[in-house]
Amino acid sequence: MRINQPLLNDLYQLTMAQGYWEHGKLDTQACFHMYFRDYPFKGGYAVACGMAQLAELVEGFAFDDDDIAYLAELPAPGGGLLFKPEFLEYLRTMEMEVTIDAVPEGTIVFPREPMIRVTGPIMQCQLLETPLLNCVSFQTLLATKAARVCAAAQGPVAEFGLRRAQGAVGGVWASRAAVVGGCSSTSNTLAGKEFGLPVSGTHAHSWVMSFPDELTAFRAYAESFPHNCILLVDTYDVEQGVRNAITVGLEMRQRGQRLMGVRIDSGDLAWLAKMARAMLDEAGLTDCGVVLSNDLDEFTIKSIRDQGAPVMSWGVGTKLATAFDQPTLGGVYKLSATRQPGGEWVDSLKISGTLAKLTIPGVLDVRRYYHESGKLAGDMIFDCNAPVGEGQVIVDPCDDLRQKKLAGLRYRTLLEPLAQDGKVVLPPEYRDAMAAQERTRAGLEELDESQKRMFNPHTYPVGMESGLNDRRRVLVRKLKGIE
Amino acid sequence: MRINQPLLNDLYQLTMAQGYWEHGKLDTQACFHMYFRDYPFKGGYAVACGMAQLAELVEGFAFDDDDIAYLAELPAPGGGLLFKPEFLEYLRTMEMEVTIDAVPEGTIVFPREPMIRVTGPIMQCQLLETPLLNCVSFQTLLATKAARVCAAAQGPVAEFGLRRAQGAVGGVWASRAAVVGGCSSTSNTLAGKEFGLPVSGTHAHSWVMSFPDELTAFRAYAESFPHNCILLVDTYDVEQGVRNAITVGLEMRQRGQRLMGVRIDSGDLAWLAKMARAMLDEAGLTDCGVVLSNDLDEFTIKSIRDQGAPVMSWGVGTKLATAFDQPTLGGVYKLSATRQPGGEWVDSLKISGTLAKLTIPGVLDVRRYYHESGKLAGDMIFDCNAPVGEGQVIVDPCDDLRQKKLAGLRYRTLLEPLAQDGKVVLPPEYRDAMAAQERTRAGLEELDESQKRMFNPHTYPVGMESGLNDRRRVLVRKLKGIE
Repeated sequence: MRINQPLLNDLYQLTMAQGYWEHGKLDTQACFHMYFRDYPFKGGYAVACGMAQLAELVEGFAFDDDDIAYLAELPAPGGGLLFKPEFLEYLRTMEMEVTIDAVPEGTIVFPREPMIRVTGPIMQCQLLETPLLNCVSFQTLLATKAARVCAAAQGPVAEFGLRRAQGAVGGVWASRAAVVGGCSSTSNTLAGKEFGLPVSGTHAHSWVMSFPDELTAFRAYAESFPHNCILLVDTYDVEQGVRNAITVGLEMRQRGQRLMGVRIDSGDLAWLAKMARAMLDEAGLTDCGVVLSNDLDEFTIKSIRDQGAPVMSWGVGTKLATAFDQPTLGGVYKLSATRQPGGEWVDSLKISGTLAKLTIPGVLDVRRYYHESGKLAGDMIFDCNAPVGEGQVIVDPCDDLRQKKLAGLRYRTLLEPLAQDGKVVLPPEYRDAMAAQERTRAGLEELDESQKRMFNPHTYPVGMESGLNDRRRVLVRKLKGIE
Repeated sequence: MRINQPLLNDLYQLTMAQGYWEHGKLDTQACFHMYFRDYPFKGGYAVACGMAQLAELVEGFAFDDDDIAYLAELPAPGGGLLFKPEFLEYLRTMEMEVTIDAVPEGTIVFPREPMIRVTGPIMQCQLLETPLLNCVSFQTLLATKAARVCAAAQGPVAEFGLRRAQGAVGGVWASRAAVVGGCSSTSNTLAGKEFGLPVSGTHAHSWVMSFPDELTAFRAYAESFPHNCILLVDTYDVEQGVRNAITVGLEMRQRGQRLMGVRIDSGDLAWLAKMARAMLDEAGLTDCGVVLSNDLDEFTIKSIRDQGAPVMSWGVGTKLATAFDQPTLGGVYKLSATRQPGGEWVDSLKISGTLAKLTIPGVLDVRRYYHESGKLAGDMIFDCNAPVGEGQVIVDPCDDLRQKKLAGLRYRTLLEPLAQDGKVVLPPEYRDAMAAQERTRAGLEELDESQKRMFNPHTYPVGMESGLNDRRRVLVRKLKGIE
């Protein structure tokens, strides 16, 4: 199965495509934005990720003969065939013309601000919706979770959730996103190979069980891996396990080698970590660390650290790789403007009963403002084709009364070119996972501590440029017929 | 990126593999079982899925030169290289020899009973652990969620969660699992193509927004798709939307066509469905159904039905495709026996502080017993190489006092060959998603209603054969040194 292929799509994108083709809308230009509505994990920020896969996706977006043959035979529910041969012929030779601007991976992002802008023929913008949301939402969610876990751990975190990840290749990109968010390594060897990520891993309980006794198993492992030796001590009994590990650690020391750590994967981790630390110290193995794993997330890690457990590093699997407490970002991709050939952009708006679901019209970008201290002051969603008001005032998209003036502060704009007229232009340093990890680290430093709190963080100011807000208000009244 | 490849693995499987190779364990045979510990979604059953992908995975399991070159350069954390060239050469030419027995997809399964048994060289069994868990746990979780959603809907459910799925190819298998669990179609076109699943889809809000007004948009869609016309009526206002849809539906009727339905994707779905139904009936469009979507799961669907909303079909996305309320099955894969060449199987056990995590030793299979009515009576986990006691008594693995006698009832065994000595032997009808869907349907009929309740279902009796239970008790005492 190929991965980046155009049929990895909701069928309705294809039926709409035929509709656009049939109704003379091939030249209609559209502008879509991808964003999310709520802070993931009830936190105070998100870490953008998925742009590298998006670039691959755009590069590989072409229907082949096999795809067309499949579509040609699809029946319409009410009889006949779903697609017209002429449309399918058009699709077969169609070349991507969209222009995509996106925040670089590792950028700190907030609800309702565009992370990605796609402009181009409406049909093509639409065909990208599902695959774009699939890769960017999921990876942003994972990178964010990883950032939270790493913030709690304040030490190296190894990601090893592949076995619990939702699907194989999803797991590979999940591992990459975890590293972008801050994990120091992954157990996922394919992700290591594909993306140049650090990989880590030692042994499982079954290794111990396959030998006559634990001590023999530990000795055998130390012999095979004198430079990668972390022993898992909880197959039968942790105290006995640590004692056996100490025996092997002292033997290794005599050979001029080092037992790097003991790993505990069950039981009361805080209590056992302290016990193991004391036993290792008592035996003189002060350079042998304690590694913890077993259903960890940012909350349990924080609790274990709060109890003063001395931990060298952490292994985090299931709850990271599945974003357990919120397995979806709820990313959306909304039409905000259309343009006929040679014409101007015309605002488009989806109205909803709830203000939070009301879209923002226009061709948008984001200005990020900075205090002199280097900390972030606020983000302005603005229309690229309209002047920004003098006071540089932002208005909360869900509450007109919450406004903030940003004039006088320095700023930068967030969206950068990813594809131009169908051709991917994302620079190599924007595809590199380790560079993205560094961007995450630097970005988190620009946030105030209050915005990074695990519980009830301070909300960061994100708003619409005030003129844009006025324009939206007028448009809503017009569409509702209350002009 | 290839999908079914051996590097899609936790690194520690490879380090252990080198250890086994180095310590003369190439001929050591092992027996592992895959199972899960708790009912997913607090329900009363699970639907097995993922065996078709597992078969692909075993078929494609070979290290190529590129994989070996990558592993050859991996550094050990403490210095030097992680892998030895002789081992990597062994790996490069290694051929799969494992034998796998598994329940067919669509089989109803319960906690702690083996769904899959893998026997063969311990190194190879171990190398399969991560990819096996990755595909089987996730797909079983999804198929189970789909079965629950379909049970609540009691009508056609279309799966359209791809955009919110955790990763692209994960999304493709997720769509397949959703159909195995009972969904009548998927919006995921690639899944449709790859697995021969029914696909469905019409149009989005952006279609409406790209036309000057809603009525024009509806007319255009009806013109393009006279045999696949379901109109989305909530872009601006549902009441107005239904009125416009009625206009188009009556026009279609005059042309001898049929408006199949209206879809509502926001607001109070129960209330709006009743309103839409009344308006459609009033206009004489009694053959036009109401389709609902928007963050649905089994609980909201049940609530909407309980309120008497007249719904033709349901579209379920995010909460199905991500298994929102429990995004992991927590499948495990445990060593239960080893054997030296020419010798007998020797029991293996992982002890844990909690009884629920204690493993079951032996080379296992499951007998499913039936009442005369055709309903299930209980499942017995038994050792294939030991006699079953005369009373055919099962003992709850977590509570010695819960026992049940099954003698006299007819039974069948659940595990069937998937691979023999490394060669996949899974018959084609066991790879087919629609056949698996039928197996799910038939299997659910064999369950008592009380076991299918959405809340607090009746627990189905699953136990160890009493002799096996005795054996385990002796083994625990021996390993704990309290003989």
